[in-house]
Amino acid sequence: MSSSFGTLFRVSSYGESHCKAVGVVIDGCPPGLDLVEKDIQSQLDRRRPGQSKLTTDRQEADQVTILSGTENGRTLGTPIALQVANKDHRPGDYGNMRDIPRPSHADYTYQMKYGIRASSGGGRSSARETIGTVASGAVAAKVLKEKYDIDIVAWVSSVGEIEATGINTEIISSAEVDQSIVRCPDSNATAKMTTLVTELKDIGDSIGGTVSCVIRNIPPGLGEPTYEKLEAKLAQAMLAIPATKGFEVGSGFAGTRLRGSQHNDPFVKKGDRLGTVTNNSGGIQGGISNGEPVLLRIGFKPPATISLAQNTVDFSGADAVLEAKGRHDPCVVPRAVPIVESMAALVILDMVFLQEARKALQFTI
Amino acid sequence: MSSSFGTLFRVSSYGESHCKAVGVVIDGCPPGLDLVEKDIQSQLDRRRPGQSKLTTDRQEADQVTILSGTENGRTLGTPIALQVANKDHRPGDYGNMRDIPRPSHADYTYQMKYGIRASSGGGRSSARETIGTVASGAVAAKVLKEKYDIDIVAWVSSVGEIEATGINTEIISSAEVDQSIVRCPDSNATAKMTTLVTELKDIGDSIGGTVSCVIRNIPPGLGEPTYEKLEAKLAQAMLAIPATKGFEVGSGFAGTRLRGSQHNDPFVKKGDRLGTVTNNSGGIQGGISNGEPVLLRIGFKPPATISLAQNTVDFSGADAVLEAKGRHDPCVVPRAVPIVESMAALVILDMVFLQEARKALQFTI
Amino acid sequence: MSSSFGTLFRVSSYGESHCKAVGVVIDGCPPGLDLVEKDIQSQLDRRRPGQSKLTTDRQEADQVTILSGTENGRTLGTPIALQVANKDHRPGDYGNMRDIPRPSHADYTYQMKYGIRASSGGGRSSARETIGTVASGAVAAKVLKEKYDIDIVAWVSSVGEIEATGINTEIISSAEVDQSIVRCPDSNATAKMTTLVTELKDIGDSIGGTVSCVIRNIPPGLGEPTYEKLEAKLAQAMLAIPATKGFEVGSGFAGTRLRGSQHNDPFVKKGDRLGTVTNNSGGIQGGISNGEPVLLRIGFKPPATISLAQNTVDFSGADAVLEAKGRHDPCVVPRAVPIVESMAALVILDMVFLQEARKALQFTI
Amino acid sequence: MSSSFGTLFRVSSYGESHCKAVGVVIDGCPPGLDLVEKDIQSQLDRRRPGQSKLTTDRQEADQVTILSGTENGRTLGTPIALQVANKDHRPGDYGNMRDIPRPSHADYTYQMKYGIRASSGGGRSSARETIGTVASGAVAAKVLKEKYDIDIVAWVSSVGEIEATGINTEIISSAEVDQSIVRCPDSNATAKMTTLVTELKDIGDSIGGTVSCVIRNIPPGLGEPTYEKLEAKLAQAMLAIPATKGFEVGSGFAGTRLRGSQHNDPFVKKGDRLGTVTNNSGGIQGGISNGEPVLLRIGFKPPATISLAQNTVDFSGADAVLEAKGRHDPCVVPRAVPIVESMAALVILDMVFLQEARKALQFTI
Repeated sequence: MSSSFGTLFRVSSYGESHCKAVGVVIDGCPPGLDLVEKDIQSQLDRRRPGQSKLTTDRQEADQVTILSGTENGRTLGTPIALQVANKDHRPGDYGNMRDIPRPSHADYTYQMKYGIRASSGGGRSSARETIGTVASGAVAAKVLKEKYDIDIVAWVSSVGEIEATGINTEIISSAEVDQSIVRCPDSNATAKMTTLVTELKDIGDSIGGTVSCVIRNIPPGLGEPTYEKLEAKLAQAMLAIPATKGFEVGSGFAGTRLRGSQHNDPFVKKGDRLGTVTNNSGGIQGGISNGEPVLLRIGFKPPATISLAQNTVDFSGADAVLEAKGRHDPCVVPRAVPIVESMAALVILDMVFLQEARKALQFTI
Repeated sequence: MSSSFGTLFRVSSYGESHCKAVGVVIDGCPPGLDLVEKDIQSQLDRRRPGQSKLTTDRQEADQVTILSGTENGRTLGTPIALQVANKDHRPGDYGNMRDIPRPSHADYTYQMKYGIRASSGGGRSSARETIGTVASGAVAAKVLKEKYDIDIVAWVSSVGEIEATGINTEIISSAEVDQSIVRCPDSNATAKMTTLVTELKDIGDSIGGTVSCVIRNIPPGLGEPTYEKLEAKLAQAMLAIPATKGFEVGSGFAGTRLRGSQHNDPFVKKGDRLGTVTNNSGGIQGGISNGEPVLLRIGFKPPATISLAQNTVDFSGADAVLEAKGRHDPCVVPRAVPIVESMAALVILDMVFLQEARKALQFTI
Repeated sequence: MSSSFGTLFRVSSYGESHCKAVGVVIDGCPPGLDLVEKDIQSQLDRRRPGQSKLTTDRQEADQVTILSGTENGRTLGTPIALQVANKDHRPGDYGNMRDIPRPSHADYTYQMKYGIRASSGGGRSSARETIGTVASGAVAAKVLKEKYDIDIVAWVSSVGEIEATGINTEIISSAEVDQSIVRCPDSNATAKMTTLVTELKDIGDSIGGTVSCVIRNIPPGLGEPTYEKLEAKLAQAMLAIPATKGFEVGSGFAGTRLRGSQHNDPFVKKGDRLGTVTNNSGGIQGGISNGEPVLLRIGFKPPATISLAQNTVDFSGADAVLEAKGRHDPCVVPRAVPIVESMAALVILDMVFLQEARKALQFTI
Repeated sequence: MSSSFGTLFRVSSYGESHCKAVGVVIDGCPPGLDLVEKDIQSQLDRRRPGQSKLTTDRQEADQVTILSGTENGRTLGTPIALQVANKDHRPGDYGNMRDIPRPSHADYTYQMKYGIRASSGGGRSSARETIGTVASGAVAAKVLKEKYDIDIVAWVSSVGEIEATGINTEIISSAEVDQSIVRCPDSNATAKMTTLVTELKDIGDSIGGTVSCVIRNIPPGLGEPTYEKLEAKLAQAMLAIPATKGFEVGSGFAGTRLRGSQHNDPFVKKGDRLGTVTNNSGGIQGGISNGEPVLLRIGFKPPATISLAQNTVDFSGADAVLEAKGRHDPCVVPRAVPIVESMAALVILDMVFLQEARKALQFTI
């Protein structure tokens, strides 16, 4: 059940790096939505490898097919199966990685958990697994945009020590983000990040980074206390993305150093609702959205697969030197941007469903 | 369903600050466990207010009763209902908070979500809600300790700018943690934290902080990719605790600034299993435990309810000044320590169940 | 998790026959509902033993208390904990039943499943477990009645070979049902049933029977294909009631003997919707309600606990004669009537929530 | 979420009659199982139309492909995606069924539920939906057979008024069942059934029937009281099959006419466990398997789509005569046999997982 996510808009994904296909089944998509492949393809294109000289050289077209759940370009309310064929099999590249578990990768833990593992390419722990998330997230985002005008935009906010500055979360757009080769809407930072990533790619090393995300036009009332608070489900969603190590909402860890008198967001009248003057809360109070933009930051470690030699041991415990083969990203954050947006969309749409159900049944007082 | 947590060890909690009782029903506790009230009471005592001069003056005995699921001090495998009566009703204290939503608190969002809210004390968003988590977490921790010798220890790692140093996560114990009035096992930091919190209590302000947690003797193989990875469920669990703003596992955000060659944890033979030389992974790789200690850090914002005057607006949008009445913690992290441990125990035990089921059905290769 | 039922209106029950209390936590009740104990008590009174000379002599007041989730007689949208204290402990009555598993009862299977069982009274398998179902079902039924004018009425349709006839499912009411001591709204059948049950009670034997149920004013569109079709969830709900052996919807097994040309329900215009001329479908087509009354029949076996001597074996396998002590119902169907109604209400309300969520998100074509 | 079934062995199906493909994703299959397409194909072949002159003339090869979750013919423990392409599109056949909802079919209710429906062939309500159930059920059955030697055998026990007699549930095998063109292992009944179905096919009418099922070698202890009792989940599973109207376990409705002294199953020593002399319980007591064979009977109505003219109304409510085109089964029970077996396997395997998890965590007393 752990390859499914969501309660009412529920996605179930499948696929390893080198099986016949990866995909996802969406159960609970609203009926009557206009939906064709290109609605999904654009977000998949942002995720795929080989987009720029900074990412892995692997070329994966990752063309999505809608197998079920629509007729004449409209959703029927029945399960929507989305599928992407696996084409670029290169099991030969994985060399001595069959005997030596990659440090900080999933080779060892998959073997311990399942007693078996895919012989190459990461299997289910491969980044190809995120295709299901991105494809279904694109559908969720379309529903949110068309029905509620909700916008979800993510961007690279740091690579290594290089931090983006001057991002205006009120207006930042995906188009603006995509103008940067590293998806960082700060041109100075982009230049430095590009240089750093290129250097590391050349020497076979890798680097971590962070992705930030804003969710705008979100209605108040989303989030399900106590165990499915909005930030709790967002945290689960983001930490389910490969290579993540941290999650912040609003002021995050910086907020832990402040006093209540500094951190509290005073209310103010905004049109016919209450808003807040500041947004340290990141749009969420008591686990429920307050109508202000939801602000998130997600930390990604440096990719584990590097071609620099590493002293480690093989599965038997004998000393070994690993020099990983294959084509791997030196930095995952540019390609993580659409994944973060997709996970956010899956969470928000599910929460919208739950709150709409409540509102329909609510008794007026 | 959002007041339930877990798949096979599933807890369902209830209760507002000023209703008759708060409690939790545990479904799926293993049969045959020795269990009496005192097994649970000790952890509840660590959570309750009024433990020291640094916390709220409210005195809540919080005596737990086991209503069902045991006979002669042993669990039957049937649902275990745990209950704590609410005694210290002081709705009079909440003054003009009925008309003015507290900045950064849940008053506004609960009203928007449910169209109604408890008239005093925070209702379901009150910290009393965590009694259910702590009571059920104590049962989970007992199972983990007795069946697998798994230890879970949390401590205060920072208050405001004051950071604890020199903590040895291999040996830190709850007894050691509890020797500090702020539950920080660094005596220098404890002194500074005590001074700061006392000052803030006196002036009616509050301060944030962080809690760190280690889970030791955890077997390899726990965690359910892809959407219920171990860190993903821990992140959900921790962000479901009131006042949390951030979550880190292993190297966390610091790890995002490192290179793969610095961050990777080389494998090494440790007895009959593989271990790692370093533990930037925080005991989790590919969403699955690797047998090394799981290391977490959780950020808590400063409590929203302060008695300092705040300029804000009332529910109608009219300007108002709020001076909160009532007795509130100036800093939640000391009392959050058992809550963090409890949520960790709930996650780990559920993951143990899932992996044991898999192992029982696995085919040998 | 198996003591919970429902997705959006979710109930979690607890309690054995001889523990301190039995109860239920409702998660997902709509906010703003007027709700006080007497709304629930009336249905519990229909379930409790000792109502008439035909049922067990045990007197259980079964007074319900609302512990949480309401304020000033209105629901808050937070979990509602309902509790009934256990008072009438008579463990002494259970004699040699500790060593001899009752034939066709749960003593043996509980011991095999859990490795332990309650020493008396059936423990969790006791009919007292149904208090949680009935209490929460009463809340669900109140929501359905007030929000949608949905009526749910069950009655005894047979006891042994005695069948009720002439029931008009369009107008049958609970008041009418309760005029019969056996809850059978056919006075001739009532007389015969009463005689039979009295005779069996006197000789220490028991008898089976059936309960029928109609759900009226149900809107079209309820039911979630493919695995949570309306009849599928109703079947699960009814077979979860102790002592049930069979379930029918609409024409049931009689329908299996008909031809399509006989069995099909032709459509006809009824006001602004389509209705059907006949109702062999029992109000459900393709797993979804069609707006016609939903018609169910549930079969109950004779109670297993009889005081007639039974030749059987003890837990060790040695021959034994069991003469059960204690006060037991000779026929469960009169008391099963409110249980059937409650389970129906739990299913229907959950389905209403799911469909309302869908409708809110649906795109107009 | 309603197209998913199961907790730990969870299947998620998709597909309409005339989309590109139908399929299912299995999440939670044990790792290390030998699994290739032919293991699944044999059961699909028993389900497909066009097997004999008695069923629909449609020819659907229904070749299954394993897309993910295996390597070198062994399961990896990751999601297994199974897919069958849709080939035999004949939307032209459905004539005036676009405007006239078929009586007792799902046309009207799908339209009311979703506000849209597939324009032909039944869409998601088509029997093609059961391909996902049968394909995943075949995998479940293989696990049960190889790991526990559990046998599941279903057969046609009646068609219309014609009842099979003399079936020995201790030894009946699928091979024996398949020797009958109607899958009824009583040659006299088979002859009569064949004649009847042939007649009805010729005149364009249809007929109902029942399928019985035995589950042998099931260990004691399966089933999760209180709401997921073994018979409750089996009832849900069976009523989720299209065209079902009734469910019985053990003595079923016949048992409702008996006395406790007649119906109770006395215990007897059978090797190292207790067994029962009779099996009115149908292998389940208190919602938990007792080790005796589980006995089920499921009622199927006559198929709704008949070519005989039917007086009804169209979607607008205007009088209309429907003469359904297309090729439809006059009787579904022969093809329902593998579907019943598959649903049973899905339930039993899920219950095995849950009980194995409990046993692993149980404390010895």
